[in-house]
Amino acid sequence: MALSVHHTGIAVVDLDASIATYAELFGAALERRETLAGQGVEAASLRVGSSRIELLRALGPDTPVGRFLARRGPGLHHLAFEVEDLDAELARLRAEGAELIDEQPRPGLFGHQVAFVHPHATGGVLAEFVAR
Amino acid sequence: MALSVHHTGIAVVDLDASIATYAELFGAALERRETLAGQGVEAASLRVGSSRIELLRALGPDTPVGRFLARRGPGLHHLAFEVEDLDAELARLRAEGAELIDEQPRPGLFGHQVAFVHPHATGGVLAEFVAR
Repeated sequence: MALSVHHTGIAVVDLDASIATYAELFGAALERRETLAGQGVEAASLRVGSSRIELLRALGPDTPVGRFLARRGPGLHHLAFEVEDLDAELARLRAEGAELIDEQPRPGLFGHQVAFVHPHATGGVLAEFVAR
Repeated sequence: MALSVHHTGIAVVDLDASIATYAELFGAALERRETLAGQGVEAASLRVGSSRIELLRALGPDTPVGRFLARRGPGLHHLAFEVEDLDAELARLRAEGAELIDEQPRPGLFGHQVAFVHPHATGGVLAEFVAR
């Protein structure tokens, strides 16, 4: 069971411009910024009160976010849930037959252990588990 | 300035099945359910801890959610921010030249006063303000 929504992930074309836009329109405050070259992404974590938004810029066209941008354009990309025990959640989902992208936790952005659930499992939403 | 993310909105094909899926995968609990015939939508508000997800089913193809489903398929639809003073926020955004879908607050789901911001203003994300 998830504890809460950890963040909503958004694919963007221009990370600096998007950080400025979310600050101006919604008062979102930049929390952290990080490049994960191995995953082809530069990301910014923004806070809006107690909520969090993650902006994702592709480092190239042949990356997961780059392919998303080519296919769908910039916009809402994934929904992340915070969980207490990521291994237990993945075991539970596997037992339920849910289609997982990551069978095991892997290092994600900002030092988190994460695992992605395939949109097939949710009815169209790419979902992420983030270990607390 | 927004207080927090109020909810993430998701367009779905089958509302009952989606409520069950989000309960099973993420422990989401049904909070309210409502049909707004004038807006062509049946919605369910789900809680995950202190966070909220809104599932949206189109009442027909010629509705905003119906057109979204035809164009993009089921998935993440909009991102809603809770604000203290909706009139003041809309005035501020108009002054900044942001493209609004609703120039004035209007009745939304679950008794809220809401206004939508055009994806052009955010770089691809349909955003909603929800008055506290």
